[in-house]
Amino acid sequence: MKKIRAAIVGYGNIGHYTLQALEAAPDFEIAGVVRRAGAENCPPELADYPVVKNIKELESVDVAILCTPTRKVEEYAKEILAMGIHTVDSFDIHTGVADLRRTLDAEAKAHGTVSVISAGWDPGSDSVVRALLEAIAPKGITYTNFGPGMSMGHTVAVKAVEGVKAALSMTIPTGTGIHRRMVYIELKDGYEFEKVAAAVKSDPYFVNDETHVQQVSSVDALLDMGHGVNLTRKGVSGKTQNQLFEFNMRINNPALTAQVLVCVARASMRQQPGCYTMIEIPVIDLLPGDREEWISHLV
Amino acid sequence: MKKIRAAIVGYGNIGHYTLQALEAAPDFEIAGVVRRAGAENCPPELADYPVVKNIKELESVDVAILCTPTRKVEEYAKEILAMGIHTVDSFDIHTGVADLRRTLDAEAKAHGTVSVISAGWDPGSDSVVRALLEAIAPKGITYTNFGPGMSMGHTVAVKAVEGVKAALSMTIPTGTGIHRRMVYIELKDGYEFEKVAAAVKSDPYFVNDETHVQQVSSVDALLDMGHGVNLTRKGVSGKTQNQLFEFNMRINNPALTAQVLVCVARASMRQQPGCYTMIEIPVIDLLPGDREEWISHLV
Repeated sequence: MKKIRAAIVGYGNIGHYTLQALEAAPDFEIAGVVRRAGAENCPPELADYPVVKNIKELESVDVAILCTPTRKVEEYAKEILAMGIHTVDSFDIHTGVADLRRTLDAEAKAHGTVSVISAGWDPGSDSVVRALLEAIAPKGITYTNFGPGMSMGHTVAVKAVEGVKAALSMTIPTGTGIHRRMVYIELKDGYEFEKVAAAVKSDPYFVNDETHVQQVSSVDALLDMGHGVNLTRKGVSGKTQNQLFEFNMRINNPALTAQVLVCVARASMRQQPGCYTMIEIPVIDLLPGDREEWISHLV
Repeated sequence: MKKIRAAIVGYGNIGHYTLQALEAAPDFEIAGVVRRAGAENCPPELADYPVVKNIKELESVDVAILCTPTRKVEEYAKEILAMGIHTVDSFDIHTGVADLRRTLDAEAKAHGTVSVISAGWDPGSDSVVRALLEAIAPKGITYTNFGPGMSMGHTVAVKAVEGVKAALSMTIPTGTGIHRRMVYIELKDGYEFEKVAAAVKSDPYFVNDETHVQQVSSVDALLDMGHGVNLTRKGVSGKTQNQLFEFNMRINNPALTAQVLVCVARASMRQQPGCYTMIEIPVIDLLPGDREEWISHLV
């Protein structure tokens, strides 16, 4: 069977775990890795693969897995779709998903390619669970509770506050979709903790949430890539009240994102040209191998 | 917007709840109900609808929701698909799903119709969760734990034992996909409890499970249509071990089955001719209304 040739675009945390997920997948071949520095100072695990500055330098790529920052996704996706290569990403700005989908849908259709967007765990696999629960209990409320785990966006916001040398913002679920922010900082010399803490709490990222700021001697000693979700729905099926659903996970964050990206890269080979979110793709398309076997095994 | 015209075929428990789910759905119209007795001794909630003995007597039906016993599904589905009407069912013999799909796929394609099979909660919505977890943590073990709740199949098996007047078999999860059977029976006059209990325990339905039989004065007083699932997976994403997932529900059994049937009846209008299980259908197709709104809201 011909393997799917995937390129990894961007080699940060997610790129690193995507390499592992591709190596573990039975139906993929790694076409190469695209990074700004090219082959310069290349980490040892990339020794066996082409490492380049531009995807054009790689041979016959079927699908590009975008592991770039979220804000770079649109630019890269447009460029790569136009080359006749499928793209997948984990674009995670919930309010921007519909717009990105519309833009990339036109681009993908114009070039006969497929793009799957916002395919991580939230947005991503959580979205599939939310859509399923909304369908099977159409009236009711879903709460998505995140954590405990590190929030990338909030951590970056803290780092931008004057006087902060290093930071970590943990998301702590307190139920019904409400979250506490536990912020750990190292202080730069000459700054007063109380003033810096007040600045963090008044930042737009934190001003509406219960936020606690603590000074620590080493942020690095606290870093852990574990994360979690508790997603609940209480709703009505037909006219029957009080149908109760719950989805929980405790996971390594970048490892799960990377695995989802590899699944949708596979699924991209099975869709008609256009742009899709995960709720628009049959879950069986995420799986390798024989479909009838999966049906016998999973249904 | 033109509403989807659905017929309910079979009017037992599931049929009754399907009527409620159709009445609650914004995009459905009830074409009528098919029952063996026709309009004779019709329950009051059917007063406003055509009630007939054969689906041919109903006008312009888009989709037939089969609420018949599982073993009748194939026969009815073949007959109705050949009339140019879509069918959906909750066929629940896990080992028979792949065969039924193959048979009905040929039938559906021959008549340009769509059939969605095994669409209840297990098989059904649980299958979607199992497939999703298998994809995002490809190595590992999934356990589906059922209950506490009434098992229809096991209850029927107990009722067939000589000396049993009335029976209820409850499924109790003990973890790792292993179940205890709690059997409650009313005894016919002249029978000895110990002998009847021994006969139940040696029945093929029970012989391999931990089974407890108790005599009660009223089985009816114990009946409750609540059921539950606890589905767990511990697996590996890429090369990262110990990814933990859990899906729980506590639900009214026939109400959830009926709601899923109505969802896949809707989805049947959006598929190419052929036969599908739920893992082959995008979850967004289960939902009514505007797709872009769902994407903005759920992804």
